[in-house]
Amino acid sequence: MKKIILLLFLIPCLVWAQNNDETVVKKIFDEALVHGEAYDQLRVLTKDIGGRLAGSPEAAAAVEWAKQVMESYEFDKVYLQEVMVPHWERGQPEKAIIANSTMGTINLNITAIGNSIGTGPKGVFGTVVEVKTFDALKALGKKNIEGKIVFFNRPFDQTHFSTFKAYGGAVNQRGAGASEAAKLGAIGVIVRSMGSFDDDHPHTGALNYALNVPKIPAIAVSTNHANLLSKVVAAGTVELYFETHCQVLEDKLSYNVIGEIKGSEFPNEYIVVGGHLDSWDNGEGAHDDGSGCVQSIEALRIFKALGIQPKRTIRAVMFMNEENGLRGGREYAKQALANKETHLAAIESDRGGFTPRGFTISATEEQRKKIQGWQSVLSPYGFFDFSQKGGGADISPLAPQGVPLMGLLPDSQRYFKIHHTAIDTFDKVNKRELHLGAGGMAAMLYLLDQHGL
Amino acid sequence: MKKIILLLFLIPCLVWAQNNDETVVKKIFDEALVHGEAYDQLRVLTKDIGGRLAGSPEAAAAVEWAKQVMESYEFDKVYLQEVMVPHWERGQPEKAIIANSTMGTINLNITAIGNSIGTGPKGVFGTVVEVKTFDALKALGKKNIEGKIVFFNRPFDQTHFSTFKAYGGAVNQRGAGASEAAKLGAIGVIVRSMGSFDDDHPHTGALNYALNVPKIPAIAVSTNHANLLSKVVAAGTVELYFETHCQVLEDKLSYNVIGEIKGSEFPNEYIVVGGHLDSWDNGEGAHDDGSGCVQSIEALRIFKALGIQPKRTIRAVMFMNEENGLRGGREYAKQALANKETHLAAIESDRGGFTPRGFTISATEEQRKKIQGWQSVLSPYGFFDFSQKGGGADISPLAPQGVPLMGLLPDSQRYFKIHHTAIDTFDKVNKRELHLGAGGMAAMLYLLDQHGL
Repeated sequence: MKKIILLLFLIPCLVWAQNNDETVVKKIFDEALVHGEAYDQLRVLTKDIGGRLAGSPEAAAAVEWAKQVMESYEFDKVYLQEVMVPHWERGQPEKAIIANSTMGTINLNITAIGNSIGTGPKGVFGTVVEVKTFDALKALGKKNIEGKIVFFNRPFDQTHFSTFKAYGGAVNQRGAGASEAAKLGAIGVIVRSMGSFDDDHPHTGALNYALNVPKIPAIAVSTNHANLLSKVVAAGTVELYFETHCQVLEDKLSYNVIGEIKGSEFPNEYIVVGGHLDSWDNGEGAHDDGSGCVQSIEALRIFKALGIQPKRTIRAVMFMNEENGLRGGREYAKQALANKETHLAAIESDRGGFTPRGFTISATEEQRKKIQGWQSVLSPYGFFDFSQKGGGADISPLAPQGVPLMGLLPDSQRYFKIHHTAIDTFDKVNKRELHLGAGGMAAMLYLLDQHGL
Repeated sequence: MKKIILLLFLIPCLVWAQNNDETVVKKIFDEALVHGEAYDQLRVLTKDIGGRLAGSPEAAAAVEWAKQVMESYEFDKVYLQEVMVPHWERGQPEKAIIANSTMGTINLNITAIGNSIGTGPKGVFGTVVEVKTFDALKALGKKNIEGKIVFFNRPFDQTHFSTFKAYGGAVNQRGAGASEAAKLGAIGVIVRSMGSFDDDHPHTGALNYALNVPKIPAIAVSTNHANLLSKVVAAGTVELYFETHCQVLEDKLSYNVIGEIKGSEFPNEYIVVGGHLDSWDNGEGAHDDGSGCVQSIEALRIFKALGIQPKRTIRAVMFMNEENGLRGGREYAKQALANKETHLAAIESDRGGFTPRGFTISATEEQRKKIQGWQSVLSPYGFFDFSQKGGGADISPLAPQGVPLMGLLPDSQRYFKIHHTAIDTFDKVNKRELHLGAGGMAAMLYLLDQHGL
């Protein structure tokens, strides 16, 4: 009998909680869609500052920008967290020329791959050997690779609905191709761009040199020119010349930028929303990841604008150096551990500012189910997919501390058109799409704060 | 006991059916994403033919194009269905000038509204009266409206997640504003463009003159210039001059274009996929609705490419004159009735070629539930939302015959940036997004054909 009475008491409470969540979440999205400021903030970050690789003057300007924006919103606390970052510079424009094809001399649309050493003014000149996999490379062996330029040309598998899955299936060519080729004596590599479409824009991105393997220079070629290069290689021996002037300089002092609204009940429990402040140098870092930065700031701004007092402390974190080092993410986790900070959850937005479709969740099964239970509150705003695992690169170092990680999951179809290219620019971002993502992050912050995990 | 045996027998059958659906649907999407031809077909329709309002030479070219494309795919039957269409022509470029504002003379970005009469070379000149609603207009009454130009300036309600809902809340200004104003003696109307964003592109679209009300000329002004006009009107009396040269000519013979793959078991039962072949003249009609046309053709092409023999006859229908008359849709339904054709269902794609999110369904509750039961087969490709009602304008005349209607439901956030503007062009269409929609339509055709309704 007691149980029944308890149950009868609980039902209206649960209904009330659900209704109240719906009411607040509606207010959050209305604020984001009608009065949202993320889009205008992004305009400044992308058009006035532009590309901002770690260690660059633009990255320093972005740190100052993020601090000033959050101070202007009067968050309870805005501060910088020191982090030493690698400092890679592109230098003078790159070039790559097919010197001897049956089609005559061809200038290829290429870009140096981040973290690569440069060729210097002497360039690299050699015969091109095309492969699609590391297994194929190994099968060719030293005798066929030594002194050659290896051309990695495995395209995206278009059958994946998620273009991130297609990216995942191709990106080892860019990340590890140089060292794999160098192990067999190659003198350079040219990698098919990590793109979903056949077009003329080369995609940069980072490589990692393996320990104790000679470092050789690496470039990425546009997908259209990868197709062309493959054709001329199939037609006969191809000699390629390429020249890059990039170099790795000394590590530099930079910062994560952090803004907080202090919790009223559990000020020492933190919920993080974040993105990374650095971007590649060739574009404006609009979708990658200016969007995630302005959405994170906007999520906290919405709390202030609506007068929502969180119980836990909510933090917007702009991580530094995601693109070619992840030093900011690692430093944040290190400091969180050193300061014994309890994180209820961390949410990253680093998949572009496109229309959101849901959230990824990396957490215990119980936590996952609790979050999935909020889907009905978010589905009126287009959030349907809560089925995938994942968080984000910058928050991933928090995983060993047992922090539940989440990622904003936007539509991925357009991302690998612009990702790491010169056309990742402000005009590619749609105001409503960006603001829906910001609203979703604010709503998730609210639900996490209200109901815990 | 018997029932249990029957049940035990049924379970593996149901599991098999589900698995088989998943296998075929995967093949359909793989074909769409890897070998899809809709994007290249759309390039021809938009770049080689371009804008194609009913009655124009371009519309006639589009009819021939659609017929040839479907014939090239060797559909079982490709034919034209005669339909008389209205013939509205824009004529020489329009202009609108604020003659006397405190800001000096201002040329406004405007476009004539479709079906409007023109002003001719003498133009229209008058004082501007701004209103946001028809109620406000009526409250002003004849004494304040007579001899004036009415400026309808109610913007989209941005709090709607679906931009179609925001459109629905504003579009009566364009459709009925001219006659509402004329009832009170207005001499012309200028309407805020039906757009989600503040920018410089005026959006055209159709109006309908009410019976027995004087016809007055109507133009649409870009959202940015609507904001500007509102400011100068607030600052003092504004005299506006505008000039349009559009005219309504005699009705013309045109055609719906129909392609069929004949059903093996029920050849006299039809399932339709369709879009409308006509478009506004100012852009290329890429999203509206070239996308729906090429997706519909592609859905049938996929059946042929995969060797799927439908049980029912499947039809791709390119309807003529959706934009300013709906004559094609009406004629199709009329002929279906006259020929006693049984339609199992009709699916329209006319919300742009963006990433699909689901399908709208207007059917009986039982039919709706059956379709919703297929969601798990389609959700791996991003189809999550089967909750909304709706079909499409061209198939709506089939409703009185009891035909279940469905609409492809893509992401709507970008649509009212380009809808009915000069920037509804091929470059705004993303190949993977378009092909996912085509795959979804083919998959829905397959499921409807396999399982009936």
